[in-house]
Amino acid sequence: MSTNASQLERLTFFSDAVFAIAITLLIIEVHVPHLETRDDGAYLQALLALQPSFMGFVLSFLVIGALWVAHHRVFGMLVDYGPSIMWPNMLLLMSIAFMPFATALMSSNPGARVPEVFYAASLLAAGLLQFFVFSRALRAPFVQPDIPVEHIAATRWRALGLPLAALLSLMAAFVAPGWNNVMLLGIPLFVRMFYAMGRRRALRLQPALAGA
Amino acid sequence: MSTNASQLERLTFFSDAVFAIAITLLIIEVHVPHLETRDDGAYLQALLALQPSFMGFVLSFLVIGALWVAHHRVFGMLVDYGPSIMWPNMLLLMSIAFMPFATALMSSNPGARVPEVFYAASLLAAGLLQFFVFSRALRAPFVQPDIPVEHIAATRWRALGLPLAALLSLMAAFVAPGWNNVMLLGIPLFVRMFYAMGRRRALRLQPALAGA
Amino acid sequence: MSTNASQLERLTFFSDAVFAIAITLLIIEVHVPHLETRDDGAYLQALLALQPSFMGFVLSFLVIGALWVAHHRVFGMLVDYGPSIMWPNMLLLMSIAFMPFATALMSSNPGARVPEVFYAASLLAAGLLQFFVFSRALRAPFVQPDIPVEHIAATRWRALGLPLAALLSLMAAFVAPGWNNVMLLGIPLFVRMFYAMGRRRALRLQPALAGA
Amino acid sequence: MSTNASQLERLTFFSDAVFAIAITLLIIEVHVPHLETRDDGAYLQALLALQPSFMGFVLSFLVIGALWVAHHRVFGMLVDYGPSIMWPNMLLLMSIAFMPFATALMSSNPGARVPEVFYAASLLAAGLLQFFVFSRALRAPFVQPDIPVEHIAATRWRALGLPLAALLSLMAAFVAPGWNNVMLLGIPLFVRMFYAMGRRRALRLQPALAGA
Repeated sequence: MSTNASQLERLTFFSDAVFAIAITLLIIEVHVPHLETRDDGAYLQALLALQPSFMGFVLSFLVIGALWVAHHRVFGMLVDYGPSIMWPNMLLLMSIAFMPFATALMSSNPGARVPEVFYAASLLAAGLLQFFVFSRALRAPFVQPDIPVEHIAATRWRALGLPLAALLSLMAAFVAPGWNNVMLLGIPLFVRMFYAMGRRRALRLQPALAGA
Repeated sequence: MSTNASQLERLTFFSDAVFAIAITLLIIEVHVPHLETRDDGAYLQALLALQPSFMGFVLSFLVIGALWVAHHRVFGMLVDYGPSIMWPNMLLLMSIAFMPFATALMSSNPGARVPEVFYAASLLAAGLLQFFVFSRALRAPFVQPDIPVEHIAATRWRALGLPLAALLSLMAAFVAPGWNNVMLLGIPLFVRMFYAMGRRRALRLQPALAGA
Repeated sequence: MSTNASQLERLTFFSDAVFAIAITLLIIEVHVPHLETRDDGAYLQALLALQPSFMGFVLSFLVIGALWVAHHRVFGMLVDYGPSIMWPNMLLLMSIAFMPFATALMSSNPGARVPEVFYAASLLAAGLLQFFVFSRALRAPFVQPDIPVEHIAATRWRALGLPLAALLSLMAAFVAPGWNNVMLLGIPLFVRMFYAMGRRRALRLQPALAGA
Repeated sequence: MSTNASQLERLTFFSDAVFAIAITLLIIEVHVPHLETRDDGAYLQALLALQPSFMGFVLSFLVIGALWVAHHRVFGMLVDYGPSIMWPNMLLLMSIAFMPFATALMSSNPGARVPEVFYAASLLAAGLLQFFVFSRALRAPFVQPDIPVEHIAATRWRALGLPLAALLSLMAAFVAPGWNNVMLLGIPLFVRMFYAMGRRRALRLQPALAGA
């Protein structure tokens, strides 16, 4: 239990657990309709009225899922960690644990501007904290020494994709609240774009690596 | 932390955590009666009125439990994973995390058709996603190379047992809402049936394996 | 990921997660008082009124904790597992996941007979399922071969301590509801008693082992 | 699964899970406003009214986070464990699982004295239990034999930082309820202070170690 590897594993485990709990708690905020009738139409209407909650559930599940997949990828590249990662990661987990609230606020008040802005801002905060944690972690002596420098750079850069989409969603929320979340569909695209940019930049800065 | 094995282990761990949280959250949706009397009869009646909630709890616990046991079995056959598994598995977890809602909807409105159809449809979605994940995972280079081909095929096929039961339950819900869940008792039978079918088919298609 | 050891580890992990979630969810059922005053006396009274909830929380935490400690001990003696353990263990986990409901029912209706009987019965069911799982697990080829037979027998027997206390509590609930839980204080004693009995019996039955 | 190392790992895992669940459940107690208007001002006011809940969430997240970081550090120094750690650790976990209640009580009744005292007392209990567990664990034969004695002593002492801050907060709550939590900002300072004190004292008591 005493090596750095096992301590890193435990930190990773704790992070995974918070991600898993936050993502599963999302459903608790969807209120179960309880009708006194057996009329099919009434039930269909009740479910239709829950559509914003369902969409919030799916959206946040995918977004927290994407943040976890990135966390999983980056922590898999590490061989060690330090205090400079511990607390930024704790703040990241705090922003993840906060997402069920932001989701429920948005879902319970569909189309309202402030909840949409609040949700986008919460996501932006989580994304920026993730980028900050990754920037601290993807360095010597934490990162595996045999990973190519351009891959490390690209992995750091790709973490900017989600915050960019959140920022665009935040701005769009002022104009078209409710529709602004469409911006989040851009995440896969932005992630790929930043990955390519980061990779190209690293190769340009360190030309000797181009042949590696 | 950097091998594929440890990354697969972490993916497995995250999946296990979501299954465990969803299965334990089921009880939260059972509302605790709070009576102002000390009359035994009143309490017995209150507990009797909760019978649909208890049955929903037991049913969903067993069904999610069965999905976990299958996930546990299949991921135990893997030595590697890839992006083609990661996101389908995330969608599977989303359907699992959704089950407490579907359960509570059904339990809070006993005998109503739409909630029963909704529950069966949610289960069908989870079962089909599970089958899809398994189909992607039970392949080279992910699966252990020394597992006999006919066992891999049979393991893939058996995952059709739960979706078939859910489909029958879905159809029966239109005719006899509330009683339709009896169809789910067929899961063990269907699983065994599909296992045998998948095994026989694989052996027929690759006769050279018959002697293995 | 493919050995029996790692599959057993994953089963153990899943069980631990359900225990951990159930034990932590207990607090959710304690309703937070929300007063519109700043009068200290009003708050003290509100907290005093929560005393049954606090006691239920502490009692169930200790009892589920004891069940986990025993589970931890027994699964630490295993080197393999099989289908004969998988589903009984799942039923045990179901009874554990059910405890927050039974606790809240008892705490919300202090002094009422039916909730006390219900709580004791739930605990009895969990204890008997645990004994059943252990009886299945503490056998060749699952248990480590180098563990002395009399220790295995004693470990199986000690699992009868909690069910006995629950049974006594169940019977006492009919006579003195609310006070019956005092019986649960006997758990440490009963566990030790059964451990000694099981050990002595195993040594008597297999005299050749006495010198081991 | 049968070595002490793997049993310690499982105990550590169980503890981590309870910490992770308690820290993530904090958000559940923040009640989501559900307004029937689209007026931005109404939403901003509703969010402003939630400020005590947000502050309680952040405060408890950081405090439970600090307790976990310390638990992670100390259990990473162990190579074995025993019954003398098992149950004190279970009581520590109970106090952690209780924190969401204490947090919600304080957040729902901002500025009231009793809830502030109650919160500080809960934190004090958790801190003292943590100190007690660490004192039991940081000993032969549990602690790794190659860790310098003065580092062990300092690690034990530093665990007094949080209880001291909680004690000061508890006393201040009588005078200035609501403002008393400012005392908790002293945790990093107190921890460092006790660490230095413990180290110096150990070196003084065992002068032969000074050169190590």
